[in-house]
Amino acid sequence: MSDASYARNARTTPTRDRERAAWDKEAVNAILDAGLVCHLGFVADGAPVVLPTIYARVGERLYIHGSTGSRPMRGASVDQGMPVCVTVTHLDGLVLTKSAFNHSVNYRSVVAHGIAYQVTDPDELTLALDALVDQTVPGRSREVRPANAKERAATRVIRLDLDEVSAKSRTGGTGEDEDDLDLPYWAGVVPVTTAYGTPEPAPHSTVPAPANLPSSRAAV
Amino acid sequence: MSDASYARNARTTPTRDRERAAWDKEAVNAILDAGLVCHLGFVADGAPVVLPTIYARVGERLYIHGSTGSRPMRGASVDQGMPVCVTVTHLDGLVLTKSAFNHSVNYRSVVAHGIAYQVTDPDELTLALDALVDQTVPGRSREVRPANAKERAATRVIRLDLDEVSAKSRTGGTGEDEDDLDLPYWAGVVPVTTAYGTPEPAPHSTVPAPANLPSSRAAV
Repeated sequence: MSDASYARNARTTPTRDRERAAWDKEAVNAILDAGLVCHLGFVADGAPVVLPTIYARVGERLYIHGSTGSRPMRGASVDQGMPVCVTVTHLDGLVLTKSAFNHSVNYRSVVAHGIAYQVTDPDELTLALDALVDQTVPGRSREVRPANAKERAATRVIRLDLDEVSAKSRTGGTGEDEDDLDLPYWAGVVPVTTAYGTPEPAPHSTVPAPANLPSSRAAV
Repeated sequence: MSDASYARNARTTPTRDRERAAWDKEAVNAILDAGLVCHLGFVADGAPVVLPTIYARVGERLYIHGSTGSRPMRGASVDQGMPVCVTVTHLDGLVLTKSAFNHSVNYRSVVAHGIAYQVTDPDELTLALDALVDQTVPGRSREVRPANAKERAATRVIRLDLDEVSAKSRTGGTGEDEDDLDLPYWAGVVPVTTAYGTPEPAPHSTVPAPANLPSSRAAV
């Protein structure tokens, strides 16, 4: 492990397709920064629960927030924390081959394991809440009314240090068996992107759409 | 519970925003059928693991496949099975308000809990493998070489009966506090869609792209 890479251990080493895995921080952070929705996994009564939620990365930490009453927010206490797995996935393409077996998808994903703890420090809470808004639209936290005391009290934020984390991705074209090359079927890749449409102003919005909105451009 | 709805219990009733939840099969199935990648949660050594993978719905069952060597496939045995949570999420929009607190996203998601079991019946295995290819492109399983005995032996399929399952979604515009309506900030919704690009044929593809490919049209 170097400073440029996250730790590599049994839990962060995939059992399959290891050549698709990466642990360097640049690769991991790029995938996290391109996303908005993660899937948060935790254990409740011995069974797994996976919920979609938004997240933000600040340095080597992930922040996730929710109502003080939500299950994962109640579970991740200040002292004991809660074991979680946070996964972020981007689908980049359908890989269609002449055999059913070799079909695949192009994707980028990050899986982060660890213990999530409740954030209580007021400054860290402000940092996290701003980052959660900015993950949606860069710089947006400076163009809105910040949370007041009542709103902060109704919101819980949990922190996961990026430590046991790995990226996995597939890019490129079809992987076809030699014997299948001449079969009379179509084969190739259908690219998939996340696209942002034209911003739809609310009736009470009285200023022009800011330049930082992700309007009408394809996202990574 | 009626025949048109999935069972509703503590585990399938969200602790927050219950008005966004639905249990009717039509709503749940529509969200599942619009997707391709799910997030599969399971418990390993007491800790949650969440992995992205493709899935298919057939009636009131979900099928997920993987290599015989992969962790969740090894865990879900024929007799004991494995507790899983399968979550499918579509991001539909960024909901930007004049206050940081009221920011939200439009989305549709399904969360399914239960025990996943290995599929061993040859006919069910064929059905599942075809469905997994067809979830990518409708009808594609009839336009490829089916898996042979060796490929089938290398693939494990698990089944999750849709029983404890619920949908959750948010649609519509901004929810703004009365006191914030006149603040001088932009507010509105930025639509988000999954878009398919022009199919890129592989060099060994010698037939025209079939009409069922999701080319150049926005997905739901």
